[in-house]
Amino acid sequence: MESPLVLGTLSFFIAVIWGQPLIALLKHYRIGKQVRMEGPDSHQEKTGTPTMGGLLFVVPVLLITGALNLANLLGFTLIGKSTLLLFFCLAAHATLGAADDWLGLRGRGKGMSARMKSGFQFIFAAIIVGILYYGPPDLYYVGVPGIPEWVSVGWLFIPAGIFIIIGFSNAVNLTDGLDSLAGSISGIAFASYGLIAYRQGQTYLAAFCFTTVGALFAFLWFNAHPAQIFMGDTGSLALGATLALVALMTGQWLLLPVVGFVFVAETVSVLLQVASAKFSRRYLGRDIRLFKMTPIHHHFELLGWSETQVKERFWIVGVLSGMLGVALALWNG
Amino acid sequence: MESPLVLGTLSFFIAVIWGQPLIALLKHYRIGKQVRMEGPDSHQEKTGTPTMGGLLFVVPVLLITGALNLANLLGFTLIGKSTLLLFFCLAAHATLGAADDWLGLRGRGKGMSARMKSGFQFIFAAIIVGILYYGPPDLYYVGVPGIPEWVSVGWLFIPAGIFIIIGFSNAVNLTDGLDSLAGSISGIAFASYGLIAYRQGQTYLAAFCFTTVGALFAFLWFNAHPAQIFMGDTGSLALGATLALVALMTGQWLLLPVVGFVFVAETVSVLLQVASAKFSRRYLGRDIRLFKMTPIHHHFELLGWSETQVKERFWIVGVLSGMLGVALALWNG
Repeated sequence: MESPLVLGTLSFFIAVIWGQPLIALLKHYRIGKQVRMEGPDSHQEKTGTPTMGGLLFVVPVLLITGALNLANLLGFTLIGKSTLLLFFCLAAHATLGAADDWLGLRGRGKGMSARMKSGFQFIFAAIIVGILYYGPPDLYYVGVPGIPEWVSVGWLFIPAGIFIIIGFSNAVNLTDGLDSLAGSISGIAFASYGLIAYRQGQTYLAAFCFTTVGALFAFLWFNAHPAQIFMGDTGSLALGATLALVALMTGQWLLLPVVGFVFVAETVSVLLQVASAKFSRRYLGRDIRLFKMTPIHHHFELLGWSETQVKERFWIVGVLSGMLGVALALWNG
Repeated sequence: MESPLVLGTLSFFIAVIWGQPLIALLKHYRIGKQVRMEGPDSHQEKTGTPTMGGLLFVVPVLLITGALNLANLLGFTLIGKSTLLLFFCLAAHATLGAADDWLGLRGRGKGMSARMKSGFQFIFAAIIVGILYYGPPDLYYVGVPGIPEWVSVGWLFIPAGIFIIIGFSNAVNLTDGLDSLAGSISGIAFASYGLIAYRQGQTYLAAFCFTTVGALFAFLWFNAHPAQIFMGDTGSLALGATLALVALMTGQWLLLPVVGFVFVAETVSVLLQVASAKFSRRYLGRDIRLFKMTPIHHHFELLGWSETQVKERFWIVGVLSGMLGVALALWNG
């Protein structure tokens, strides 16, 4: 457990030091957030805060992961197996998110077209899942709580894997609507999978998870309300896709809806809201909405919870979900 | 790892359900906080919020710990060794804190006299450390990072143990000045010692720690800004003393200043502030203060950090300290 924790601490300090110049850089190039008009009015004050802040944690994680893999290639086995696939996943989705953020800022509020973004997400997910399926053995097995043996899902691994990678990169993106929310919930989820990986003997994977957790803490330092920086799509797409990949690599991806319960709840709230509005209009002739506003964190704000209450209660739910996920994953251990 | 996590979750739900009636009860008896006049002005609005909220987590933890010990006595070994000493420590300090809170409310803002409070703290600590020293074997050994064997400290265990129990109950008390601060930092510290205990094979102790963590989460649910309840001395004295006892029982109490770094920093800031004022007045003829205000969380508020920034950054420091403590404790494992 030491080396993952030491890497996490190292990653935190690199990211914290990187934070000040990054914020200065983003401000210099006027990379400021245009807050979506559909949020609650109290959120309008956030316009102008630097976005693309995902670079704050993506860059240090890529540096550390890259260095460890390079050391591996040169024959110094510092941390066991390769984590190059994670490196690729993080880099690709951060680049896609950065392009989206950039176009959003430069293109009069319109980001990349939804079709183009989804297309890239699909291509990245397909490449990653293909490598998992045809590459190292046994990665299409899945852990099922209560069943002692790993269960083979065969080629179904491919659509399932693509679905959760795309789904989670979008889910973290939706969750990113309150200061410190998406960053901290991601940190909890990565720490949970880090524990699972560690207990399964996948120290290299635990090391990657805690490297990410450390860098996320540094991001949260600057993201605390009132935020000095937002992660943007740069951060959220990268975190979501990489979390899903970590889950796939542990074989415990059936537990992803448990460990990432908050992300799933945010996404499902949006889907239910759209569905309820559509069906009630069609079949009842009036507009029935299940929530006051979605993603669901806005619903609770409009119920009268303070931003802090929403955030801290979501954290509590996040930690409990993470604990439950870890307990379920270790059930057979 | 499952049983501690399951107990933690159980404890959370018991405490959350207990929260609403407790708040109603405290409000009915008008047990509302009198905010100390020396805090920043923005804190005056907190007057009237129910205090003695430590009961929210103390009662569920005592219930669960009591039930497990009763089951042990009756011959069903659910969780291994006895945790009756922890039960006593938590109950005694919560009672002392409750008496102090009660007198503070009823006695025109004056709590228990400092001398009487310290007297009780000393008596409780002496009883607990005496039982540890003369009771089960080997508890006066201490783990030193980097040294593979446990080191015997002999009778020095007694003054050291008393010092850290009293010190930490006061330190958590001082830290309890911002919504969610003392509760969450305690939760992180208990979780860290829970991991240490678990890795050392002390599952019964890990179970106690995670029971406390679960109940603290429930408290934080209601304590999120704007707080519906404060823990009061009832909570802070109990948490601090019990954390110190957990550390003593793991043998890793040399790491308490690392795991509980935030508590130590808060306390040291107060001591340094008093000392710098006293010595500068005596020897320089003018009043030099090291901090704008102590405990140190007020210093950062007066530097312009928002309450949320102070709190979340202290959490980050708390988590990193906890991780460092766990890593140091496992160094020899």
